Amino acid sequence: MSKLIDVCLLGTGGMMPLPNRWLTALLLRFNGKMILIDCGEGTQIPLKLAGWGFKSIDAIFFTHYHADHVAGLPGLLLTMGNSGREEPLCIYGPPGLIDIIKGVTVIAPQLPFEIRLFELSKDNVATSGFGEIEIHSIPAEHAVPCLSYSIEVKRAGKFDVQRAKDKGIPVQFWSRLQKGETIEVDGTTYTPDMVLGEARKGLKISYCTDTRPIGSLVDFAQESDLLICEGMYGEEDKIEKAIEKKHMTFSEAAMLAKNGNVKELWLTHYSPSMDNPEDYLCNARSVFSNTVIGRDLMSKTLVFE
Amino acid sequence: MSKLIDVCLLGTGGMMPLPNRWLTALLLRFNGKMILIDCGEGTQIPLKLAGWGFKSIDAIFFTHYHADHVAGLPGLLLTMGNSGREEPLCIYGPPGLIDIIKGVTVIAPQLPFEIRLFELSKDNVATSGFGEIEIHSIPAEHAVPCLSYSIEVKRAGKFDVQRAKDKGIPVQFWSRLQKGETIEVDGTTYTPDMVLGEARKGLKISYCTDTRPIGSLVDFAQESDLLICEGMYGEEDKIEKAIEKKHMTFSEAAMLAKNGNVKELWLTHYSPSMDNPEDYLCNARSVFSNTVIGRDLMSKTLVFE
Repeated sequence: MSKLIDVCLLGTGGMMPLPNRWLTALLLRFNGKMILIDCGEGTQIPLKLAGWGFKSIDAIFFTHYHADHVAGLPGLLLTMGNSGREEPLCIYGPPGLIDIIKGVTVIAPQLPFEIRLFELSKDNVATSGFGEIEIHSIPAEHAVPCLSYSIEVKRAGKFDVQRAKDKGIPVQFWSRLQKGETIEVDGTTYTPDMVLGEARKGLKISYCTDTRPIGSLVDFAQESDLLICEGMYGEEDKIEKAIEKKHMTFSEAAMLAKNGNVKELWLTHYSPSMDNPEDYLCNARSVFSNTVIGRDLMSKTLVFE
Repeated sequence: MSKLIDVCLLGTGGMMPLPNRWLTALLLRFNGKMILIDCGEGTQIPLKLAGWGFKSIDAIFFTHYHADHVAGLPGLLLTMGNSGREEPLCIYGPPGLIDIIKGVTVIAPQLPFEIRLFELSKDNVATSGFGEIEIHSIPAEHAVPCLSYSIEVKRAGKFDVQRAKDKGIPVQFWSRLQKGETIEVDGTTYTPDMVLGEARKGLKISYCTDTRPIGSLVDFAQESDLLICEGMYGEEDKIEKAIEKKHMTFSEAAMLAKNGNVKELWLTHYSPSMDNPEDYLCNARSVFSNTVIGRDLMSKTLVFE
């Protein structure tokens, strides 16, 4: 089992792609599997620049269906098709997914792979099927139905040699048990919990964009190793606009990070009117010191403690 | 009446937007009116870089409905809406337009302006409504129904003072007649042809992309001041691929320019596999010397002779 997850913030803009700022989207890689969250107009360009390839994207998750988070999908699907993909692609998103995908793929009609659509309910449910990764979603508070996501890599407990010996478990089964496998031999069942200690801290990444900083998100993002959160407005005096447009100021995002006890905060989804988000970093850092101004193609490898 | 037309080749790529190459689209400006032809994923970015503004685009024409020519529309519409546009926008294209626009605008649902759709027939008909500009279209030969366009600025003949005097036309009507107005006064009708000489050469720009170099395009592009033509493949040995994919090689585009007696040829719509189109310029110039390798944001002002 891999002990690390790669994270790449493909873009950091909101509303429209700019000459020097791609739209907000997140790429994750773990054990050779790749997951993309959101795909606005032009997202395939930073995807190419990231250099992780197009073909092996296992799933795409959408937070919501505003154009700046979806319009790049048909082009990406065609590029994936041109790169030789044949495996089915799973696409997840809030209710409405089927109509939206039907609409935008009118210009990507003949793909060499199947698309499987999954509308996520409003409850916080884990989506599995990505190896050791679990993806949770929860409703955000935006102008349209919108989800925030968390990506969690679970980590089993340490292998306890003494317990394995005490229980008389044959040595040849130890490594399979350590990997989480249950083994049945001659009527006897050996399970991982017989030899593993308490589950250890894994990794957690939360992605909250296009939302007000509602209380449920504080719980949802709790203890994240990395919170990637929108900061539509850097200026403190844009709080009223943030409330009206259902977005956040930098300091609101920082408060969410602080109350969520996260380790690190990356801001993203900047208003096109904000030329240099660095100018307002102090507004976030005065609330939560480990705030970073997200930049296009900023990446990080998170490793188990 | 203005004596010039501005042309800006917003992008020069085919199939997918690249980090250093936008998708092929053309912007035209004449007498304050702007027309956009094609709008692939990301086209709003070079549109912003061109600096001519978003709000005053009068009409958008589509050659066909492959994603690399259409996917940027919903984002552009939203950006136009955000820039305060309220006037109706006219969109033209080959049959199928209504379904395509209905599909892709599912992510641009509430625009502050009306969209008027016009499906163009297969005949070469002039689309007017743009002042002195006439836009003609003709079927191209591509994998799907596709149109090539020509943009023509007509130019009236010189005002003939002697004829106006001979016919006894009152001097106060001269300038209105010169502008093309017909005047009725006290039962007498004065028409422009009474005082204007033969129509003089105007300006003509042709835009042919995603097509084989069929004979009808030679006639259609005849005597163009500028032919903007696809050159999907620079290499001569890709002729079979060009035939199969219904595109052109550089030398085929150059032959079209030569047979069409055009003044200047700009190549565009390069295959993503062609890193440096300049490498193959010789293949075009050996057929038609006044060939230019189109580059993103290349612009030119065409002026009446």
